[in-house]
Amino acid sequence: MNDAEIDEKFMRLALQEARMAAEENEVPIGAVIVVNGKIVGRGHNLTERLNDVTAHAEMQAITAAADTLGGKYLPQCTLYVTVEPCPMCAGALGWAQIGRIVYGASDPKRGYTTLLSPQSAKTPLHPKTSVTAGVLADEAAELLRTFFASRRR
Amino acid sequence: MNDAEIDEKFMRLALQEARMAAEENEVPIGAVIVVNGKIVGRGHNLTERLNDVTAHAEMQAITAAADTLGGKYLPQCTLYVTVEPCPMCAGALGWAQIGRIVYGASDPKRGYTTLLSPQSAKTPLHPKTSVTAGVLADEAAELLRTFFASRRR
Repeated sequence: MNDAEIDEKFMRLALQEARMAAEENEVPIGAVIVVNGKIVGRGHNLTERLNDVTAHAEMQAITAAADTLGGKYLPQCTLYVTVEPCPMCAGALGWAQIGRIVYGASDPKRGYTTLLSPQSAKTPLHPKTSVTAGVLADEAAELLRTFFASRRR
Repeated sequence: MNDAEIDEKFMRLALQEARMAAEENEVPIGAVIVVNGKIVGRGHNLTERLNDVTAHAEMQAITAAADTLGGKYLPQCTLYVTVEPCPMCAGALGWAQIGRIVYGASDPKRGYTTLLSPQSAKTPLHPKTSVTAGVLADEAAELLRTFFASRRR
């Protein structure tokens, strides 16, 4: 597999997590954290079940990966998440010093990039974190559209 | 008590939480969440003990308050925290729609206000959240200084 195929493979697993969220009536966003081709953390949005605004997919995946690896910094890890992280999750990924973030759909309302200013280098992420956007974005966006459409009925 | 005295009273309780963190060798930051003069959530930094970068004082207090109140939105609540929230915690407070934030010391390196741009109204907080800074700031800053000085020895 080439790099793009590897990214799609792990994003499909994040999309599986997102579908699990949808089945539990949670906003369908999923995440996995990978190091050396192995998943060390995963999660999906559980804000309703846990009655906790902080229970985003990325937060669960970060906590799980730190548990698995025995250290709270994740510079060797890649996070795959179906939707662009919000400022809270971007801040958490910054503290974790995650090596790389791959996300699917952009979130023009709530995504962390809405906070970035062209006049400033300030970002909630760690300066060494690389970011790849748009991997299987249509599938991630479609999950959200279907979910919110079904709730408006 | 007037409003300023009430703020100082609750900030002293947040400072108590911060001291508990210091005693456990955690960065000394503490928080309490108050509604109608009653504490509904409290927390102090536990990133080392929990091996979890997301275990900031504010995050614990938000989760605790949602538990106590049985709802995950906190528009009627005031968060008192000894130090300016980071972008992660500001994002979480945004999702929680916290009514008011009162913080002590500013954090010119890691505080969420470093992300704000004079050119843009974008903030991780909810638009209705009011913010009061600088309450017992010297005590909060002194706790941090003492903690980091002791670690450099």
